[in-house]
Amino acid sequence: GTGAGNDLYINQAIVFIEDAIQYRSINHRVDSKSLWLYRWYYSRTCQWILSLTITVILALAFVEEPSSLTITSDVRYRLPAWNPPCGLTESVELLCFLVFVVDVSVKSYLIGWKEFWKNKWLMAYILTLIVSLADWIVSLSFFCKESVRIRRILRPFFLLQNSSMMKKTLKSINSTLPEMASVLLLLAVHLSLFTMFAMLLFARTKDNQQDKEWVVYFRNLPDSLTSLLVLLTTANNPDVMIPAYSKNRAYSIFFILFTVLGNLFLMNLLTAIIYNQFRGYLLKSVQSSLFRRRLGIRAAFEVLSSLKETPASAQQSCVSVGALLQVLQKAEMDSRCKQAIMRSLKMCSCDQLSAAQFQKLFEELDKDAIKQHPPSPEYQSHFMQKMQFAFGHPYFGYLGNVVALANIISICVVLVMDADKQPSERDDFFLGAINCFFILYYLLEMLLKILAMGLKRYLSYPSNRFDGLLTVILLILEIATFAVYGFPHPGWRPEFMGLLSLWDMVRLVNMFIVFRFLRIIPNMKFMALVVTTLLDLVKNLRAFAGILVVVFYAFAITGIMLFKGAVVPLGNTSAANTTHDNGTLQCGTYEQLEYWPNNFDDFAEKNMISWCSAQAEIIYCLLYVFSVHLICRWAKIYFVAWWLISSVIWVNLFVALLLENFIHKWDRRCQRESLSDIEYQRTVELMFRDVLEEPTEEELMEKLHQHPHLHLCR
Amino acid sequence: GTGAGNDLYINQAIVFIEDAIQYRSINHRVDSKSLWLYRWYYSRTCQWILSLTITVILALAFVEEPSSLTITSDVRYRLPAWNPPCGLTESVELLCFLVFVVDVSVKSYLIGWKEFWKNKWLMAYILTLIVSLADWIVSLSFFCKESVRIRRILRPFFLLQNSSMMKKTLKSINSTLPEMASVLLLLAVHLSLFTMFAMLLFARTKDNQQDKEWVVYFRNLPDSLTSLLVLLTTANNPDVMIPAYSKNRAYSIFFILFTVLGNLFLMNLLTAIIYNQFRGYLLKSVQSSLFRRRLGIRAAFEVLSSLKETPASAQQSCVSVGALLQVLQKAEMDSRCKQAIMRSLKMCSCDQLSAAQFQKLFEELDKDAIKQHPPSPEYQSHFMQKMQFAFGHPYFGYLGNVVALANIISICVVLVMDADKQPSERDDFFLGAINCFFILYYLLEMLLKILAMGLKRYLSYPSNRFDGLLTVILLILEIATFAVYGFPHPGWRPEFMGLLSLWDMVRLVNMFIVFRFLRIIPNMKFMALVVTTLLDLVKNLRAFAGILVVVFYAFAITGIMLFKGAVVPLGNTSAANTTHDNGTLQCGTYEQLEYWPNNFDDFAEKNMISWCSAQAEIIYCLLYVFSVHLICRWAKIYFVAWWLISSVIWVNLFVALLLENFIHKWDRRCQRESLSDIEYQRTVELMFRDVLEEPTEEELMEKLHQHPHLHLCR
Repeated sequence: GTGAGNDLYINQAIVFIEDAIQYRSINHRVDSKSLWLYRWYYSRTCQWILSLTITVILALAFVEEPSSLTITSDVRYRLPAWNPPCGLTESVELLCFLVFVVDVSVKSYLIGWKEFWKNKWLMAYILTLIVSLADWIVSLSFFCKESVRIRRILRPFFLLQNSSMMKKTLKSINSTLPEMASVLLLLAVHLSLFTMFAMLLFARTKDNQQDKEWVVYFRNLPDSLTSLLVLLTTANNPDVMIPAYSKNRAYSIFFILFTVLGNLFLMNLLTAIIYNQFRGYLLKSVQSSLFRRRLGIRAAFEVLSSLKETPASAQQSCVSVGALLQVLQKAEMDSRCKQAIMRSLKMCSCDQLSAAQFQKLFEELDKDAIKQHPPSPEYQSHFMQKMQFAFGHPYFGYLGNVVALANIISICVVLVMDADKQPSERDDFFLGAINCFFILYYLLEMLLKILAMGLKRYLSYPSNRFDGLLTVILLILEIATFAVYGFPHPGWRPEFMGLLSLWDMVRLVNMFIVFRFLRIIPNMKFMALVVTTLLDLVKNLRAFAGILVVVFYAFAITGIMLFKGAVVPLGNTSAANTTHDNGTLQCGTYEQLEYWPNNFDDFAEKNMISWCSAQAEIIYCLLYVFSVHLICRWAKIYFVAWWLISSVIWVNLFVALLLENFIHKWDRRCQRESLSDIEYQRTVELMFRDVLEEPTEEELMEKLHQHPHLHLCR
Repeated sequence: GTGAGNDLYINQAIVFIEDAIQYRSINHRVDSKSLWLYRWYYSRTCQWILSLTITVILALAFVEEPSSLTITSDVRYRLPAWNPPCGLTESVELLCFLVFVVDVSVKSYLIGWKEFWKNKWLMAYILTLIVSLADWIVSLSFFCKESVRIRRILRPFFLLQNSSMMKKTLKSINSTLPEMASVLLLLAVHLSLFTMFAMLLFARTKDNQQDKEWVVYFRNLPDSLTSLLVLLTTANNPDVMIPAYSKNRAYSIFFILFTVLGNLFLMNLLTAIIYNQFRGYLLKSVQSSLFRRRLGIRAAFEVLSSLKETPASAQQSCVSVGALLQVLQKAEMDSRCKQAIMRSLKMCSCDQLSAAQFQKLFEELDKDAIKQHPPSPEYQSHFMQKMQFAFGHPYFGYLGNVVALANIISICVVLVMDADKQPSERDDFFLGAINCFFILYYLLEMLLKILAMGLKRYLSYPSNRFDGLLTVILLILEIATFAVYGFPHPGWRPEFMGLLSLWDMVRLVNMFIVFRFLRIIPNMKFMALVVTTLLDLVKNLRAFAGILVVVFYAFAITGIMLFKGAVVPLGNTSAANTTHDNGTLQCGTYEQLEYWPNNFDDFAEKNMISWCSAQAEIIYCLLYVFSVHLICRWAKIYFVAWWLISSVIWVNLFVALLLENFIHKWDRRCQRESLSDIEYQRTVELMFRDVLEEPTEEELMEKLHQHPHLHLCR
């Protein structure tokens, strides 16, 4: 090869190795200019700008009219919120769109036109951008007075298309849909049959006293369906049964049958189905990541082997160590891994590397990073050595925990004693004095630990960092309190001064002390296991959470569009509800339920409602409220859809993932226990290490030969 | 051996084979008299008497004072219930106790004194009987006026000790307790830390308007704990947040954090832990059943082989076919199995059986019973053959489903149209006419099917039996209606006559029609799968359900003892609540919530409440009610305990079992699909067939040599 050809091969190898490290696909253009563009596109700055743009466009909803920039969301009290002038958010939006246009063009160019037509996500991306831009133009030409803004609903798509994890998860969820649909159909049949039964059972009778059940819950078909649907969420559980049960005990059989079949069997069947589908999900995804990594490394090997064909006749292709060193120096990777690979490359001392040796070198990437704490300082004096032994001993940590517990208990006692006192009767002396003592102890503990372990070793433990940070914050708060209000003394009850009153200061200190108590967690084995499981779960859940955010956002925006202004304060009810001329307010309207703050007038608000209804309780109230407001049909469908997606499907997905994660972790607990003093930086990949299958040489080569842009010589 | 010795061996073999069939332990006495007693004790009659006694003693609670023999349980309306005179229920109880005394003596004798001291269940049984009898004597000596009856709480123990499945399950649950306790501890820490946070956040302020949150939910430590505990059950979900959220949007962060951590993470972690523990539970239990069966058969072989040592010098012991035939004739077993074994014994045509051959013969017991439907009648006439083809075809069944659907829809339409009509305006003509037509069609369908399939074949399908039974019931109802009210005609609205009014008759007919619609289930593949899974689950769940009944019963009785008379009608409030002299009724008392029918005055009532609180909703209301009634502390602890056991632990156990069952079933679905036209009578054992391990010869022999009463010669 020529010099330019060599440079191209080196660059290709660099990019392939970077792809392997990041688990990216290698199916992109491989000519010089494209490689430069590719590295630029995947550089930290570019990806950071893209993420920022997505965040900004999603966050716009909080600022846009109707904005959420008020302290309370109660329509009775809140002041009119500041609304940005027309054109401000729109210009920010345009900027974001321009970034997206650049993004989609670069992406499309890099994968090549032939691949582009196969990629539905990219096509959808372009379509979304076109629709958004068109909507933006319409919006500006109406001077922001148009009522429907489609582009708002489309926004979460930008988040979705940017994450390969989320796309993969969505595909998984998609494959579960047929079976979920079957269970939902079963649920629908269950619901409709029981509705008919209920309507026949609780029919109107001649005695008006007797048919309370009919009046309240089963007046007509939609009412009956709603009552039973809400019973399925257990939100109105005993209430719906009481009137009938009061008439005759036997009626309870109907409700018990309905709940057992619907709630206990069918709902849990949904969990079972989703868990069954997702059992292999994590493993499969880790397996495909591993394949991508091996493929990238193999591709790098292949391009490097065609660099200089030194032993031209040799059957086995191989790579010179010098070329690999050149590639390694230029590739962006974790410095620890780079050094480890360099080191083993020097130890190898051979000149040529075979494919197997090449792969073996890069196995360093898969290894655990063993975290080593810096050593303690070595003191000369005998006294200092004794001090070091005493305060570096775990028992000193346990003593700290006991003191923290004592502090918590003392706060608790004061809280119980002061619970019913008027603010003017309160004396902060006692709490101030004990807190002062405890905070001094915390400071002393921190200093002694630093003395025993040395600052570097002290800071290398996360629990110490947590501890130290809170101790420093507490110290600052305490000093500030003393500076403003003087030292505690009986009758220490000064009036409001400065930013916070003394009472607020003391409360803040107490909250930090309660929070600091969490330091006990790593000391309890089971708790530590649970907490690490939860943290792992959070990592694995990012994709799910992203999808939830997407759905949430779309629902919130739809909700705002549909129900904006549906809730009006009591004063101007007549102005808004012209169709609803019944003057008396029924039980359950906003006024009586005191649900004023829950309305659809802004975005944060809508999130709140969605959150609540995810908990399946508020649906009932809101359904009722909206049925009063005469837009009941749509609101009902809207809430039922939201309940199904958020509460039923998403919660089940979550449970499935938790089961999967936890069971893996639990099985491995015994093996790890012996090694518990070494802190591994565990990743999902490592959790599955023993069950993963290495891809075979044939699979890798077949995939490489299918590469649309790289044409290997052999 | 002598003739008497031979008889003994034969009898032993019979009993061992019966043990194997019933999966019983073989560790019992094996002398002649004991064997006779053993067979008598495990005969159908004896076991039936024992079950009846347990049922009777448990059912006594419904009849005993306070009895549940009233139609309504509403304290305002119900008449004073009939209470049995003193001595009536007590004498029934004494009879039951005597049966139990006989039971425990026989059981203890049969397992032998040495084993008796190792058996904690038997000791507990005896202790329970002694305490119950002592309590019974005390009760009679007070002429039934004593307030505390301990023996009532002990009653469910009799149910528990009689079922080996339940004992096994209890052991399993017991082994999960440490881990469950850890999660519950975590939950307690979570709850208490958040309670302290909440008390600091929502402290009393000077402005009374502002601290609604404090007044209602966080007034003092018990209130705060209760509020957050109820939030954990999501029963007061949005309500508890609204006042704070109304003040400042940021307060919602506290509640969201609490719910996500507590409800989503910790609660589901409990599911994960329980599932993890129970994953192998079914398999293990089936495996141990298999071992018992193989052991019983092996024991039978061993005793039969020592019967006549024909080839005295032979290394391998063996059994003569004649002796086995003698045993088989006397043993009680399924006639199908018996015939199959006899048949293969004749086909074998050898004179002596080795141990392996012997085991192989009895493998018939493990096999699926392939159900064969009787053949259709063969008609001579060409016309009849055509008829038979047409009406025996599945399409005719589908047509029946379509007609049933049409009937359901017509009823639905009539219901929607008549929903708001007064009973006096209603005209039953239309519904009467169409129902008459549809029932005639159902009759015709049944007759034609019988014609095509023959009565025997028709009845051999469960779906046909269901169908036919409902058709006959509908026909009888319809004929009765016409006999009393005449044929339908416009304005068919006669007054009340006889037992039921016309309107009630029509409603009853409609309910049966809706119920009959369930015949579509076997026609839909996924539904059929789900329904068979559920039916399997019900079989496997018997032990769990039994334990739930035990806990339920104990809780209900305790509840009655603790809170009897706590709820009194409005009229005599002052008489009962002397300590509660606050005349104004607070919001949330019985009067306003209309929870009159829910009180603790009788047993059925208590079950109702337990049921509701299992659904986690009513706790909230009842906690509130009881806090008004001044026995709040105890009631709170009582309900929290009940919620933990029923809702948290039991529901999670249920989910674990459902997951286990469903996943096994689902994996096997593909294999079975090809055989779907053969109806298997599936048992749990068969579900696990492929994964079960056969016990080895050494294990069996070791276990046999450990038998406390059987002393094998070699």
